[in-house]
Amino acid sequence: MNTANPLSHLNTRGEARMVDVSEKQITSRTATACASIKMQPTTLNLIIEGGHPKGDVLATARIAGIMAAKKTPELIPLCHPLMLSKVEVDLTADESLPGILIHATCKLAGQTGVEMEALTAASVAALTVYDMCKAVDKRMIIQGIRVLEKKGGKSGDWDFSN
Amino acid sequence: MNTANPLSHLNTRGEARMVDVSEKQITSRTATACASIKMQPTTLNLIIEGGHPKGDVLATARIAGIMAAKKTPELIPLCHPLMLSKVEVDLTADESLPGILIHATCKLAGQTGVEMEALTAASVAALTVYDMCKAVDKRMIIQGIRVLEKKGGKSGDWDFSN
Amino acid sequence: MNTANPLSHLNTRGEARMVDVSEKQITSRTATACASIKMQPTTLNLIIEGGHPKGDVLATARIAGIMAAKKTPELIPLCHPLMLSKVEVDLTADESLPGILIHATCKLAGQTGVEMEALTAASVAALTVYDMCKAVDKRMIIQGIRVLEKKGGKSGDWDFSN
Amino acid sequence: MNTANPLSHLNTRGEARMVDVSEKQITSRTATACASIKMQPTTLNLIIEGGHPKGDVLATARIAGIMAAKKTPELIPLCHPLMLSKVEVDLTADESLPGILIHATCKLAGQTGVEMEALTAASVAALTVYDMCKAVDKRMIIQGIRVLEKKGGKSGDWDFSN
Amino acid sequence: MNTANPLSHLNTRGEARMVDVSEKQITSRTATACASIKMQPTTLNLIIEGGHPKGDVLATARIAGIMAAKKTPELIPLCHPLMLSKVEVDLTADESLPGILIHATCKLAGQTGVEMEALTAASVAALTVYDMCKAVDKRMIIQGIRVLEKKGGKSGDWDFSN
Amino acid sequence: MNTANPLSHLNTRGEARMVDVSEKQITSRTATACASIKMQPTTLNLIIEGGHPKGDVLATARIAGIMAAKKTPELIPLCHPLMLSKVEVDLTADESLPGILIHATCKLAGQTGVEMEALTAASVAALTVYDMCKAVDKRMIIQGIRVLEKKGGKSGDWDFSN
Repeated sequence: MNTANPLSHLNTRGEARMVDVSEKQITSRTATACASIKMQPTTLNLIIEGGHPKGDVLATARIAGIMAAKKTPELIPLCHPLMLSKVEVDLTADESLPGILIHATCKLAGQTGVEMEALTAASVAALTVYDMCKAVDKRMIIQGIRVLEKKGGKSGDWDFSN
Repeated sequence: MNTANPLSHLNTRGEARMVDVSEKQITSRTATACASIKMQPTTLNLIIEGGHPKGDVLATARIAGIMAAKKTPELIPLCHPLMLSKVEVDLTADESLPGILIHATCKLAGQTGVEMEALTAASVAALTVYDMCKAVDKRMIIQGIRVLEKKGGKSGDWDFSN
Repeated sequence: MNTANPLSHLNTRGEARMVDVSEKQITSRTATACASIKMQPTTLNLIIEGGHPKGDVLATARIAGIMAAKKTPELIPLCHPLMLSKVEVDLTADESLPGILIHATCKLAGQTGVEMEALTAASVAALTVYDMCKAVDKRMIIQGIRVLEKKGGKSGDWDFSN
Repeated sequence: MNTANPLSHLNTRGEARMVDVSEKQITSRTATACASIKMQPTTLNLIIEGGHPKGDVLATARIAGIMAAKKTPELIPLCHPLMLSKVEVDLTADESLPGILIHATCKLAGQTGVEMEALTAASVAALTVYDMCKAVDKRMIIQGIRVLEKKGGKSGDWDFSN
Repeated sequence: MNTANPLSHLNTRGEARMVDVSEKQITSRTATACASIKMQPTTLNLIIEGGHPKGDVLATARIAGIMAAKKTPELIPLCHPLMLSKVEVDLTADESLPGILIHATCKLAGQTGVEMEALTAASVAALTVYDMCKAVDKRMIIQGIRVLEKKGGKSGDWDFSN
Repeated sequence: MNTANPLSHLNTRGEARMVDVSEKQITSRTATACASIKMQPTTLNLIIEGGHPKGDVLATARIAGIMAAKKTPELIPLCHPLMLSKVEVDLTADESLPGILIHATCKLAGQTGVEMEALTAASVAALTVYDMCKAVDKRMIIQGIRVLEKKGGKSGDWDFSN
């Protein structure tokens, strides 16, 4: 079969490759991804109150997420190295879940989108919350990791909800 | 407040630290984690058939997961460096999802458990599948990241289902 | 010249090598290092008060220091890879400096000491404070990076002050 | 409080973030930082003479500093990834200290300054000298880590001495 | 001696430095490197047939090569960080060797060539094949690592064969 | 087919995995690997004389090789993380080649051999020489990368030459 593979990360023989983006235009690109981590209500309470003003759980997860965004090309084999111009990771307590909601936004001017960077930031922030709470809660679940919104690039703006 | 913080990764002032495990015993420890990635049925078809024998999507994600397990202490700020003696990552197509199910198992003889390593392996394998399919499916969701089973260590064997 | 080089990281020809520690005993080893960063009093005020409860400067530097301890063998060419069993990084405001004092303690059971890990943690924590304040203060100076105390190992306990 | 945080690495809630530099201009930027490591005169002698022509102490520290400059965004959580176009690390023996003086210069065409890269290079070069001499001198002190000079960028040229 | 060192990675004192490329033009640059790994014919058979359709040896080596290309500036001290826009690694069985032939091609628009990235990708792919086969064949040899072809940059197109 | 795969890095379905070494004994293990890089005689002269005392080419390659040994589990997907207790990299000029001969020796007390670490150290040292000389010699070839000798482990001592 000679036609291009619809999965662009594979060549016509089905072999992995890092796609050639050298002809793509340098444009401003933004992506926002989310994740959530569901836990016992008592676990959530330990994070948001707990006798001392907040503690470092969310601050630690925020830093871990930001640093993970920069490590994306080391983790995801076919991602291009790129120079993020902004990373923001937001963690908020959601008592209805109960748990923590995470939003991560990445931005750059470049030739490829930054969805993977935003998804990696959100995932690693969630894993960090998991790590810091696992001694008191073994049944946490990380869920709902997805891209919410993309701006810029050839395919233009996109939003998960429509 | 002088009593120990129930979140052991925080000291009594609520500050993050890497817990002292030097008094813990060296025992054999295993953990299995899972994750899944939900996608369009047509996307799943591209992975499992598609004109060429399989292609590299699952093989690439498997390698990415194994390598990520080794990177866990670089990603999760308070994880101890450790010497995994085994990593196995399994990806299977599930047409009822539809999508890919991932199981990751890590093992070592050491002073801390390997849940975070197994969770990181499963998460990064899922992110890699996402990366390789995102050009054809923007609405994939990674979900159900959790520890299924733990063996060894002071707290003994544990299973998510009971 | 055939006698051993007094600088053990060099062979008799003066060439760098990673010293053979395989015959050394595995013992519990601890090291504490310190560093300080001197700044304008107004800069220190921005870190410790500033309208919002503390902000993340010290939490970010603490995490950066902990993660840097784990990266020591990647940074310092002749350091052995090792498995830290504890890392603790403490930052305190010192109005008499004025600035931030940093103490870092590392521990492991192993064949080599952990001074370099403690020194690296303290240095990178200081560099992180620098990074977060450099927009308001260009004349900060990082100083006094040294080992305060060592326990364990062949040479036994040691203290900078005597 | 709604006004911007004077510490630009924190948002209005005091949370760490990687600042958005995407609107900043790409200009040529240079920074020079210094550090010094004070030691016993006999230690300095071992580095600069010692029976064999020089040995690798300074060469090893130079390489460690250059490689560390490239690792800055991995070490300092809120640093942007960037593409250094030049790194030069200079180590000179100073018998009046007595010890080693280090100068590191980094350069790039980009949207952010390179002070952190120069400071990281100088710091890691100093730590490497420390590592290679610590078997013979436990009381070395690394000091005077600061930016000496900056060129380019919005704020223009700057020099520590005026 | 004041004249420039013909080895541009050394200054006039013979000290290593990362060359200043900031005045070089940004042009499209491509390099292809090759390597081969010679083995017993029975080892080659295990890779290319062996009861199950191919197995992951070549897929694993391909991924390892692609990821190694991105790690080049971390491995080779004086390489500039750069943003590869394409990496392709090809492994083919050669029964006349007998063994595996590897070709790696890297591409970017930048100020320095990508020979080292292509050579690193080919070398690490070969080392990965070695790793996966060493239990059955201790006498494999990796050989013929060289640049085959270069395009772009000041010195223009170049080909090993003429 | 149910029998074990003779390539132990693949499971019975031919899928890559990190082999379980947890039942293997901890013994002292050493491996020595070699590599060589062939160049023009004039290139070799620039390295070994050249007006200034030696320059940093060999020192830089030595450090790069030592640091690469520590990075082996990050580069070779199925290698276990391990704690090298010694790394030594030797580079010697060989006028008959003409070029540079490289020997790398790694050692640890552990559950797996260190051939891959020695091979990686030798390969990266050779690539570093290549990088530093490529401006004056485009036709260098790296060759003869192989394990020379192994000691320790279940299979006992082994030597390439018999």
